[in-house]
Amino acid sequence: MQDCIFCKIARGEIGSAKIYEDKNLFIFLDIMPANKGHALIIPKTHYFTFSEIPDEIACAMAMAAKRVAKALSLAVGSKAYNLLMNNGRYAGQAVEHAHMHVIPRFKNDNVGLKWSHTKYGDKEIDEFADKLRKFV
Amino acid sequence: MQDCIFCKIARGEIGSAKIYEDKNLFIFLDIMPANKGHALIIPKTHYFTFSEIPDEIACAMAMAAKRVAKALSLAVGSKAYNLLMNNGRYAGQAVEHAHMHVIPRFKNDNVGLKWSHTKYGDKEIDEFADKLRKFV
Repeated sequence: MQDCIFCKIARGEIGSAKIYEDKNLFIFLDIMPANKGHALIIPKTHYFTFSEIPDEIACAMAMAAKRVAKALSLAVGSKAYNLLMNNGRYAGQAVEHAHMHVIPRFKNDNVGLKWSHTKYGDKEIDEFADKLRKFV
Repeated sequence: MQDCIFCKIARGEIGSAKIYEDKNLFIFLDIMPANKGHALIIPKTHYFTFSEIPDEIACAMAMAAKRVAKALSLAVGSKAYNLLMNNGRYAGQAVEHAHMHVIPRFKNDNVGLKWSHTKYGDKEIDEFADKLRKFV
């Protein structure tokens, strides 16, 4: 996509701290990291969200996430990590090119990746499950 | 694993709001949802984090995430979603059986899934990339 910053990074038109590249994927460091080493895995082809990514490439991203997590443990000594994809604006997706965050985590770091909780009413969870089961 | 609550759920020993099951995966609704419809995708076999999950099952989880996201859009009308895995205690993993959150998101919901940022010093991002590149 012409004006997409991640497309430009994947094409090498904008510099990045690249850590891996193959025919489908490009992996580089987030310039605004939650912790240093925070990596972004993107498909080279432009897709908006994970839902549009073909299965083969979505699988390649999952495999890459495992490798990046291992590399982080070896290179920066992280003992834990988050995998996160925000898909769609209301989910907090800032760049409209699908990207998976791999965030190295450490004891007592200040990343603070938490969320609020809501509650189901009586039997409501089963009603939701019934609705979802039809479509999955 | 004998005492793992998600193993018990996958074996049907503890009830859950199940939405899908096959030979490798079990998908059910989180009882403390970020938003109603918040689903958890787990491998039936006990693995601690995503890193230990064999590639075939990790791929199956990625495919399932796409299906669950679509089901959520159809069943609860979500326009966006987060995919999140907390791997390891320091990453906020509460149950030590690998699980992927699929969180439906809506305009102006109060989920608040955000994180703090840190900064790289001059050239530091390239030093991190150099270290990581060796291991990915």
